[in-house]
Amino acid sequence: MQPPYPSPDLTGYEPGYDIPALLGWPVQQVHTPALLIDLDALERNLATMRAACADMGVSLRAHGKMHRSADLARLQMAVGGAVGLCCQKVSEAEAFVRAGLRDVLISNELRDPAKLDRLARLPLLGARVAVCVDDAAAIAPLAEACARHGTQIDVLIEIDCGAGRCGIAPDAVVPLAQIIVSAGLNLTGVQAYHGKMQHIRDFAARQAEAARAESLTRHAVGLLRDAGFAIATVTGGGSGSFGFEGTSGLWTELQCGSYAVMDADYAAVRDAEGQPLSARFPPALQVLTQVMSLPRPGHAVCDAGLKSLSGESGLPLAEGLTCLGLSDEHSEFADPDHRLKVGDRMRLIPGHCAPTINLHDWLVGLRGDRVECLWPVTARGRSF
Amino acid sequence: MQPPYPSPDLTGYEPGYDIPALLGWPVQQVHTPALLIDLDALERNLATMRAACADMGVSLRAHGKMHRSADLARLQMAVGGAVGLCCQKVSEAEAFVRAGLRDVLISNELRDPAKLDRLARLPLLGARVAVCVDDAAAIAPLAEACARHGTQIDVLIEIDCGAGRCGIAPDAVVPLAQIIVSAGLNLTGVQAYHGKMQHIRDFAARQAEAARAESLTRHAVGLLRDAGFAIATVTGGGSGSFGFEGTSGLWTELQCGSYAVMDADYAAVRDAEGQPLSARFPPALQVLTQVMSLPRPGHAVCDAGLKSLSGESGLPLAEGLTCLGLSDEHSEFADPDHRLKVGDRMRLIPGHCAPTINLHDWLVGLRGDRVECLWPVTARGRSF
Repeated sequence: MQPPYPSPDLTGYEPGYDIPALLGWPVQQVHTPALLIDLDALERNLATMRAACADMGVSLRAHGKMHRSADLARLQMAVGGAVGLCCQKVSEAEAFVRAGLRDVLISNELRDPAKLDRLARLPLLGARVAVCVDDAAAIAPLAEACARHGTQIDVLIEIDCGAGRCGIAPDAVVPLAQIIVSAGLNLTGVQAYHGKMQHIRDFAARQAEAARAESLTRHAVGLLRDAGFAIATVTGGGSGSFGFEGTSGLWTELQCGSYAVMDADYAAVRDAEGQPLSARFPPALQVLTQVMSLPRPGHAVCDAGLKSLSGESGLPLAEGLTCLGLSDEHSEFADPDHRLKVGDRMRLIPGHCAPTINLHDWLVGLRGDRVECLWPVTARGRSF
Repeated sequence: MQPPYPSPDLTGYEPGYDIPALLGWPVQQVHTPALLIDLDALERNLATMRAACADMGVSLRAHGKMHRSADLARLQMAVGGAVGLCCQKVSEAEAFVRAGLRDVLISNELRDPAKLDRLARLPLLGARVAVCVDDAAAIAPLAEACARHGTQIDVLIEIDCGAGRCGIAPDAVVPLAQIIVSAGLNLTGVQAYHGKMQHIRDFAARQAEAARAESLTRHAVGLLRDAGFAIATVTGGGSGSFGFEGTSGLWTELQCGSYAVMDADYAAVRDAEGQPLSARFPPALQVLTQVMSLPRPGHAVCDAGLKSLSGESGLPLAEGLTCLGLSDEHSEFADPDHRLKVGDRMRLIPGHCAPTINLHDWLVGLRGDRVECLWPVTARGRSF
């Protein structure tokens, strides 16, 4: 997969109404607000993570929930060293599988019988599919759904390694494993993912939490192996913690997602040298906005608000300017040096990449200042 | 327009993949997360606002940015007393006009030449369209776009009546009005909208801010009328403040949006009697979610997170339970009385209605506990 990267057939699409740009446009012409991917930065980030995983001897299962883009997923598989994808919802998995991705882990629990039925049908499309389980009561419905469709779903036991969200206590893994195997399901491993740890900004504090997560996970995996279960896969880790899991000798597979594009929150997370993670993984995702009003000296209003930028993880970063606030369709900036004029385009680094991408229908791939590709956000809105 | 309300042709749509439900389904069957509208509550809210506007002798221009639904807009026009719609972006206006809505105000500034060209083409589809201006430099490009397409766009001067976002200073209205009229544009009035005031929770504090906004607006309108300009329309007001503008004798038109469905933020705004606004306008919008994990006693994890509920205005409300946090695809709840079991459906009132609706492709209209209609979120994602 070599650049220029392909785009879908855009015949009949009206720029400004259906799509934010046409191929070959300069960024100055892109309709705003639009979601930009700097392809050079993206490729560097994919190469950096590929090399890091190779050095550490672990696999990369790229987290597709971050981008929900089948095109970006294909690039991660083709050149980014990913062995497969993960995602959080059955509807996301369906979108990826229908787009041709063939190895998908749902890194989450599914309990609704309707969702289990959908899950069990996915292998019929030629995909290898896995799911997490954290409750013995989940096993029989999953096994029944698989039997109904004559398919096999791989199962991983999710343990709570410190985040306190889903997952069973490490001590409780063996009885659950016995139930899984007794039901005829294929137990392939353990998921140990600590989402909250990813965002601990101080390195030493994050390292301490990672050590705790490792200890809990090692205990659970040890119990399972001592009981005779073949645990081929230990999966987890994210862009803020993968160096810990990757060098532990315990995790076999990392679920990093945000590393590919980064965001303002991750840019505040520090490595061992006190550098922001964005020094190693430069931001590749930006929301392009335009100044639409300069109502008074030193104050600029832009056309990207909460419907273009997720707001719950803090305000976006803009080079040399301070964002003062977001409302539905506006962002406001202090411009004390009067640098901005109406119509100026600015690139904002969003606070949180995953929910920001999910607001947009298209990713505009830029090579330098020119549109190289348009990628649909394949699974946008697919949270069911 | 009588219930049962129409839905688009859903032939070929797969429930769970394309749509969250089928018509007639009980709510217990709706795929989660899904966005519900309680049609009885919606109708009550529309009737309450219609009666309030009639009592006050002002028009209602319902804010379509809140719901982005052509079907809900049609209901507001047919039974809710609305004389027209407003919205914030030209792409939203295009979606509404293409869906048959014929009177749309863009309650915002447009400066990008490409957007002005799109705006000036909208009357060719049979719509009456108006836009706001807050800068003399905006006039010539707007007039040129209208001349290019042989159309007329009504113009309103936006004044800053206290929010400090867009809008010119009230003192500066007359020179701007002269430029608008000299350019051959149709100056129809003034927009005075104070978004931040809507959310001031204390009634007396909100009333004081409303008095300040009224004084600024009265000054600007007086200057324009003294200078000989016919100011037919003074438009503004929102769900938190409309009683002030509506009884001022100054505003002719109110731009309320959230009143139709409400949200957790508005439920904390108090009226003169200390009652929440939701006592008069009951919440009609809910995100349906399911318990997907009970990892330890007293702690429930549900399947609606930041991709189903806007998170920047606070956590959602759930009857009798406290939401502890939102992540991309999860919400966590304290359940000290162990009321919940896996698979239970809960209805969450989102923190902020407009960006929450914009996350979803469909509004599921419920009559009691049964799906009466499915409305596409017509302008979802149309922020450009």
